[in-house]
Amino acid sequence: MRSTVFHGPGAVSLDTVPDAGLREATDAVVRVLCSCICGSDIWAYRGIAKRSPGQPIGHEFVGVVDAIGSEVRTLRPGDVVVAPFFWCDGTCVQCARGVPTSCIAGGFWGRSTGADGGQAEAVRVPHADGTLVAVDATEDDERLPALLTLADVMGTGLHAAKCAEVGPGDVVAVVGDGAVGLCGVLAARRLGAERVIMLGRNDARLAIARRFGATDVVRHRGAAAAEGVRELTAGLGADRVLECVGTEESIATAIAASADGGTVGYVGVPHGVLRAPIREMFGRSVALRGGIAPVRRYIPELVGDVLHGDLDPSPVFDVGLPLAAVEEGYATMDARLATKVLLRC
Amino acid sequence: MRSTVFHGPGAVSLDTVPDAGLREATDAVVRVLCSCICGSDIWAYRGIAKRSPGQPIGHEFVGVVDAIGSEVRTLRPGDVVVAPFFWCDGTCVQCARGVPTSCIAGGFWGRSTGADGGQAEAVRVPHADGTLVAVDATEDDERLPALLTLADVMGTGLHAAKCAEVGPGDVVAVVGDGAVGLCGVLAARRLGAERVIMLGRNDARLAIARRFGATDVVRHRGAAAAEGVRELTAGLGADRVLECVGTEESIATAIAASADGGTVGYVGVPHGVLRAPIREMFGRSVALRGGIAPVRRYIPELVGDVLHGDLDPSPVFDVGLPLAAVEEGYATMDARLATKVLLRC
Repeated sequence: MRSTVFHGPGAVSLDTVPDAGLREATDAVVRVLCSCICGSDIWAYRGIAKRSPGQPIGHEFVGVVDAIGSEVRTLRPGDVVVAPFFWCDGTCVQCARGVPTSCIAGGFWGRSTGADGGQAEAVRVPHADGTLVAVDATEDDERLPALLTLADVMGTGLHAAKCAEVGPGDVVAVVGDGAVGLCGVLAARRLGAERVIMLGRNDARLAIARRFGATDVVRHRGAAAAEGVRELTAGLGADRVLECVGTEESIATAIAASADGGTVGYVGVPHGVLRAPIREMFGRSVALRGGIAPVRRYIPELVGDVLHGDLDPSPVFDVGLPLAAVEEGYATMDARLATKVLLRC
Repeated sequence: MRSTVFHGPGAVSLDTVPDAGLREATDAVVRVLCSCICGSDIWAYRGIAKRSPGQPIGHEFVGVVDAIGSEVRTLRPGDVVVAPFFWCDGTCVQCARGVPTSCIAGGFWGRSTGADGGQAEAVRVPHADGTLVAVDATEDDERLPALLTLADVMGTGLHAAKCAEVGPGDVVAVVGDGAVGLCGVLAARRLGAERVIMLGRNDARLAIARRFGATDVVRHRGAAAAEGVRELTAGLGADRVLECVGTEESIATAIAASADGGTVGYVGVPHGVLRAPIREMFGRSVALRGGIAPVRRYIPELVGDVLHGDLDPSPVFDVGLPLAAVEEGYATMDARLATKVLLRC
């Protein structure tokens, strides 16, 4: 089969690799219908996030169950499924505590030893019962791109908003205009935010933010951005801030943009040197909560809304390509010519 | 009147200063019945926390209202009152948001310009209606030391526990065996914690911790302490961790001792270089929330329990001295021969 493989900074290609197949009785094999490229893949492509040459890459996919192991109970061949960006057994102590990303049997597509990548024609899915969510959709369903966002960016944006404790009437600021930040806008509005202030300067992304419910825009970065949020909030700062970038600067901006007593929900994958400004957080009582998003938990609560047409994050995919053009997809995102690239098999 | 004055590292003395007097119509003058020395005063005494020579010092006191300004409505001369470690008007937008430590008219005893210190015979209290809480006690009430803890350490320990979201059945670890950490043990038990693991090595303090409800002790620091917590929790770490020290090491220890998906409530006044290990927090979904404690908010909910005998944090005062012996008090705490020194006028 064909799978995207990371060969080094700036070098990914669609290679022929051994077919995905059942290995454990709890595995399923999923034929991929569509996958996509994540901002975190681009950090690897740029050589900032470490990956090993030869690793398959891609961690978001929607597909059809092709085969199941003898112990798989909740899935049948032919089921259309959404896969979260990690696998988990759903039964261990960490899963029971609500932290499936810490599942003791869990792992990450591409990065864990022996794991397939998602930007591929098929994927072996460990612990299929705990990992996959079957959805009432067909292979050619037009909502597949919207469902695909539940694999990562929509669940991650929702996690940012939940960690920031967004509630009715809140003023929310969103740091990061990538797909996660944009989904954070949608999520904040779902949770009742009255105002959502988007920080960004890319007109195409700001247009999506407005479509998703952003009410205000601050076209600055760093301290000036935090100041811009204060100007829009009578000097107080935002009640809740979603940090969707993952750099020291973006975390500092998020904390500076928060009102005293506010909460920053952070989901940007950390890269580079990272220090949280504890002294400022202490003096102004700003909380920092978040981390890698337990998107598996959120898929069931979001999938119904997608299927009913009440939630459509698919506009984050502003470029669609066939899987065969995955190299072009990486180059396009690296050049910031796309927010997020959809790959169709 | 006599007031303790900071003259430089290692140098405090009880000096004669101008009498505390009304300046604003919203002021009260409080004659101090008892005050105490805080761990954060010792950081100043050691030259680690910056203070200006000539500043009065001390921020915890219980006293009797001696005089009130013309606009004071809720207090009468003769009222016994508890003062939080900061003053606040109780009406501004920050107070209304529940962050009285960010009160736009607020300040800190000793440190704000023109402010009296608490280790003194009397204190001018700005915004007396918003700041002071009158209690049903007499000048010679034996519960005054317990009430005095509400000025800072008990409220701060409670804040740590609330920020850590301690709830029924939780396993809680407490980093820091000072008065705040000890009060954190009491607070965690009040909130229903099933197990409270105290990190410490000082037998006298551990005895108080056990009296306050600690169920386990880990006699290590740093990574070994976090490992000790894991050994007591089947490898998981504590559900909730209270960080009551304020160093980079203690924050790292608290995060390392937390279970995945757990929350660290941090109230240790930050000193020295401070970096939060964001990468670890991200990967294990550990939240960090806390900061300077809004103890004014907690006094009303705690004072009833103290007066009814259901809450007695006063064992944190293991040395009592007359105010005249304040220099001895600092030396005693600096030498770690006392957990917390009570000063009686």
